[in-house]
Amino acid sequence: MLVETQEEAPKIREPLRRVGITNLRIIAKINWKGKVYTFIPVFEITIDLPAEKKGIHMSRLVESITEAMSEAVEEEVMEAHSSLEELGRAVIRRLESKHPHRRAEVWIKTHLIIPRETPASGKTSYEPYDVEVGVIKNEDGTFEKVLRVRVIGNTVCPHAMANNNGKTHIQRAIGELEVRAGYDEKIELEEMIDVVESSFSSPTYTLLKTVDENAVVQRMFENPKFVEDVAREIFAKAKERFNGKIHVRVISNESIHKHDVIAETWS
Amino acid sequence: MLVETQEEAPKIREPLRRVGITNLRIIAKINWKGKVYTFIPVFEITIDLPAEKKGIHMSRLVESITEAMSEAVEEEVMEAHSSLEELGRAVIRRLESKHPHRRAEVWIKTHLIIPRETPASGKTSYEPYDVEVGVIKNEDGTFEKVLRVRVIGNTVCPHAMANNNGKTHIQRAIGELEVRAGYDEKIELEEMIDVVESSFSSPTYTLLKTVDENAVVQRMFENPKFVEDVAREIFAKAKERFNGKIHVRVISNESIHKHDVIAETWS
Amino acid sequence: MLVETQEEAPKIREPLRRVGITNLRIIAKINWKGKVYTFIPVFEITIDLPAEKKGIHMSRLVESITEAMSEAVEEEVMEAHSSLEELGRAVIRRLESKHPHRRAEVWIKTHLIIPRETPASGKTSYEPYDVEVGVIKNEDGTFEKVLRVRVIGNTVCPHAMANNNGKTHIQRAIGELEVRAGYDEKIELEEMIDVVESSFSSPTYTLLKTVDENAVVQRMFENPKFVEDVAREIFAKAKERFNGKIHVRVISNESIHKHDVIAETWS
Amino acid sequence: MLVETQEEAPKIREPLRRVGITNLRIIAKINWKGKVYTFIPVFEITIDLPAEKKGIHMSRLVESITEAMSEAVEEEVMEAHSSLEELGRAVIRRLESKHPHRRAEVWIKTHLIIPRETPASGKTSYEPYDVEVGVIKNEDGTFEKVLRVRVIGNTVCPHAMANNNGKTHIQRAIGELEVRAGYDEKIELEEMIDVVESSFSSPTYTLLKTVDENAVVQRMFENPKFVEDVAREIFAKAKERFNGKIHVRVISNESIHKHDVIAETWS
Repeated sequence: MLVETQEEAPKIREPLRRVGITNLRIIAKINWKGKVYTFIPVFEITIDLPAEKKGIHMSRLVESITEAMSEAVEEEVMEAHSSLEELGRAVIRRLESKHPHRRAEVWIKTHLIIPRETPASGKTSYEPYDVEVGVIKNEDGTFEKVLRVRVIGNTVCPHAMANNNGKTHIQRAIGELEVRAGYDEKIELEEMIDVVESSFSSPTYTLLKTVDENAVVQRMFENPKFVEDVAREIFAKAKERFNGKIHVRVISNESIHKHDVIAETWS
Repeated sequence: MLVETQEEAPKIREPLRRVGITNLRIIAKINWKGKVYTFIPVFEITIDLPAEKKGIHMSRLVESITEAMSEAVEEEVMEAHSSLEELGRAVIRRLESKHPHRRAEVWIKTHLIIPRETPASGKTSYEPYDVEVGVIKNEDGTFEKVLRVRVIGNTVCPHAMANNNGKTHIQRAIGELEVRAGYDEKIELEEMIDVVESSFSSPTYTLLKTVDENAVVQRMFENPKFVEDVAREIFAKAKERFNGKIHVRVISNESIHKHDVIAETWS
Repeated sequence: MLVETQEEAPKIREPLRRVGITNLRIIAKINWKGKVYTFIPVFEITIDLPAEKKGIHMSRLVESITEAMSEAVEEEVMEAHSSLEELGRAVIRRLESKHPHRRAEVWIKTHLIIPRETPASGKTSYEPYDVEVGVIKNEDGTFEKVLRVRVIGNTVCPHAMANNNGKTHIQRAIGELEVRAGYDEKIELEEMIDVVESSFSSPTYTLLKTVDENAVVQRMFENPKFVEDVAREIFAKAKERFNGKIHVRVISNESIHKHDVIAETWS
Repeated sequence: MLVETQEEAPKIREPLRRVGITNLRIIAKINWKGKVYTFIPVFEITIDLPAEKKGIHMSRLVESITEAMSEAVEEEVMEAHSSLEELGRAVIRRLESKHPHRRAEVWIKTHLIIPRETPASGKTSYEPYDVEVGVIKNEDGTFEKVLRVRVIGNTVCPHAMANNNGKTHIQRAIGELEVRAGYDEKIELEEMIDVVESSFSSPTYTLLKTVDENAVVQRMFENPKFVEDVAREIFAKAKERFNGKIHVRVISNESIHKHDVIAETWS
C-alpha cells in the first residue's frame, strides 16, 4: 500500500503559486514550415498548490512533457506543434487530465538557427539566437504567452565619434526583447529577432568574407548608436508591431571599460 | 571643444526607465558592528532618461560610487555606512549633485560570512551567504529598498520516507527570500538569512566533526520536508517578521533526478 | 584590392599552438543508428599559426563547419557522420583544402538524450547527458580524439550511515569521465555514460513513479558510497574497458554543507 | 563509539590523486603592503588518498583553512600572509599536523582591485582583476605554485583597418596568463596583470572622463591588434620576466560576429 503524502494536510496552510519541475532537459519536436526538427530545450513546468494539500505529484508533470513528445504523437506533431507555444499548450492539455490545478505554466528555453544572407558576398550564414517561450493558463481558463528573444549585436559610440574625428569605440552588445500577450496573438519569434537585430549599429554574422566584413564595418560607422538608442529603437518597433506588454533590455560589453552599460524599459 | 552628444535630442523620443552601469566590481567598506570590513561587491547603478535627451553621462555614475568609497570618506564610513543599504543611499546622494534624474537605483551584490556554532561539538563554523541589496529613489523622492538573501540548505522527502520504512532521499536545496519595503523599515539581512536557514530540514555547516554530522543527520530524519514545505515556512515566517512585499523561491537539487524541483510564491 | 593582413610578418615571431573560433553555435546532423538527428552544439575549431604569419583566416574555419553541415552533404551525412567524432573529422578534412596548417582541433559540445527503463514500473524515462568530443590532427598527420561525458548521480555517506544506525546524508553528485585515445579506438559515448552512471549509489531518472522512487531509495541505502568510492569505481571500470588515457572527476553537492567535495584521478 | 569508515579498506584498491573540498567560500586576510585586507575567496583544498584507505577526513581540511584565518592568528597574518601563496602555504602547514598525506594542493580564487591613473585627466580609477593562486606540495616535499590572472582589454582589427581606410571593428577581449613555478620564485600578481593589460590595443578603465575616453580611442586606433598579436605579446613578455612554465589564452568577443575568437599557446 503506497502512502500519498502529497494529499495530506500541510502544517502551514498557505497556497503556493508555482510548484513544479525546473532545469529539465528533454527532446522536443517542432513542425517548422512543414519539416519536423528536433531540439533539446530546457523545460520548466509548474502548477499552483492549494492551501490544504501538502504537495504536488511531480512525476505527472514530467509525464505531461514526455507524452507530448513521444513517438506515438509524431503524427500529431506534424499537424499541431508548429511553434514552441503550441508545444507548451499541448503539454498543459495533457496535464489537465493528470493533475488538478487552477493555474499552470510551461516554459521552454532553446536556441534557434536562422539562415541569413551576408551583406556583400551573398553567402548563407547560419545565425544562432536564444529564445524562451512561456505558456500560462490563468485561473479563469484563459491562456497567455510570454515570448523572449536574445540577440547579439553591437554598439558604436556616437559621443566618442563626435570627439575624435570619426574614430570611436565599438563593442558587442546583447539585446533582449520580451512580449507578453494573449495566447492567440500572432507573434513570430523570427520577427521579434528581426526587430532586435535591425536596431543595433549593424547586424552580426557567423560567416563574413573580407568584402562582407568591410560592409559591416562601413555600416557600423554610418550608424553610431548608444546603448540607449538601441533600446529605444527596439522598444518603438516592438510597440508598433506587437500587441502586448513589452520589455526591452540592452547590455553593451564596453571595449573601453571592464564593466557593462545597460538600458532598459517596459510598457 | 568637447561635444556632449548625450545632451542632443534623440531620433526616437521615448523615455527610458533604467540607464546606467552594470557588472561593476569595486571595493566597498562597511562599518559592521563597529568594525570596518572590506568587500568587493558587484554594483549596478541606473537612472531614468527623459525622452528629449540622447544619453546619460555614464562616468558620473561611476564617480558617485568610487567617491562614496574613497579614502577621503573613511571617517564618514565609520559613522554612516553600517549597512549595505546605507552605502547604496550614500551613492545616490552623491549622484544627486552630479547628474539630474527623477529616478535612481543602486544594486549591490556580495557575500556575507556569519559565524555559527556547530550543533554538537560547539565549534565555530563560518557560513557564507549570497546577499543583494537594491536602493530605489522614486520619482516623488521617496526611497524604497529590496533585500535578497540566498541560503543553501536541504530537503528530506517525507513521501519516500512514508513509503520506505523511514528510508528516503535527501538533497541540497537553495532558498531565496526577497523583501521589498520602505527604506526606513528595520530589516536585517542576518534575520532574513535566519528565516530561510531555519526552514530547511536542517541548517548546513561548513565545519562538521563526526558528532556534529550525526546531529545534522538525526535532525534531517526528524524533520522531513518537501520543497513546498520549505517555501511555506519561509513565507509564513517572513510575513510575520518583515513589513514589506515578500517573494520566496526554493529550488531542490533532487538526488534521484537530473532535474530540480521548485516552489515559489509571493505576497 | 583587398589587403591580406593575415599573411604579413608579425612584429613578434612566435608560433601559436591554437588559433581559431570558439563558442560558435551551429546546427549539426548526425546519423545515429540509421536515423538523422539534428543538434545545436557549441563548436571550437583551432589551427596552429607559424611564427612568420600575422594571423589566420578565421572565416575559412567557419566555412569548414558550415559546409560539412550543409544540405548539399545530407547524403554524405547519412553514410558517414554516424558519430560526433566523424563529424569532427569531416570538418578537418574540409579545412585541409581551405587553410594550410600543421595541427588542427575541432571540439563539439552537446547533449545526448538516452531512453532508460525505470527500475520498477518499467516505464521509459529520457535521460539527458552532457558530452564533448575533440578531434585532434597532430603535426605528423595522425588523429587523436578526446571523449568526455558528464553524468548526474548521487552519493550516500557510508560514514554517517555507520554512525547513525542506518540513517545518513544523501546528495546529488556529478561524475565526469574523459578518455583520450587514438582516433580509431572503438569507444562509445553511451558506454562511457554507462560506466559513470553505474558507479553512483544509484542511477537517477527523469521520470519516477512512486514504486520506482522506492526502488531507487532502497538501492541507495544498500549501496552507500563516498565520492572517493564513486571516483575509484569509474576509474577502474574505464581502465578495463577503454584503451586510452583516462581522467575521472566526481563532485558531490553535499546536503549537510554549503560547499562541495571532490575526488579526482587520472592515468 | 564513533566508527571511522574512512580508515577502512576500500573495495577497489586504487590510489586517488586529489580528494578534498571545493567551492568553499571563506574570509581570508592578507597583509598587503603593511595593511590587512579582507577578501572572501573561493577555496579548493585536496590531498592524495592511498589505495588502502576508503576516504579522507574532510573536516580536517576545513579546519586547516579556518584556523589559518582565525582571529587567534591575526598577529601572524600581519607578519606572514603578505601574499595569497603565503596564505596557501600556511593552510598546508596546518594540514600537516592534522591529516597524513603525501601530496597537497590549495587553490584560492579571488578579485584584486588596483588603482590606476586615467590617461588624460589623471584621475584615479579602481580596476578589478580575477586572480587565482595554487600552492602544491609535491610528494618529495618540494613546493610549487601556479599563479593565474584574467584581465579585460580589447582588440582592434588591423585587417579591417587596412581594408576600410582606417575604419575597423573593435571589441572587448579577455587575456589570461598562468605561470607555474617553484614556490620561491619572486612573481607578483600585479606584474602579471601589467603584462597582460599592456598587451591589448589599449588598457581599459572603470572611470573615463571624455578627455580620457578620447585618449583611449586614439590609442586603440594607433595600436590595432589581432587576438593573435595580443597572445604573442603576452607570451613574449611573460617568458622574459617570469621564470616558470607559461600558458597564455586570449578570447576576443567579436563585435561583428556572435561567436568569439581565440589564440592560445604555452611553453
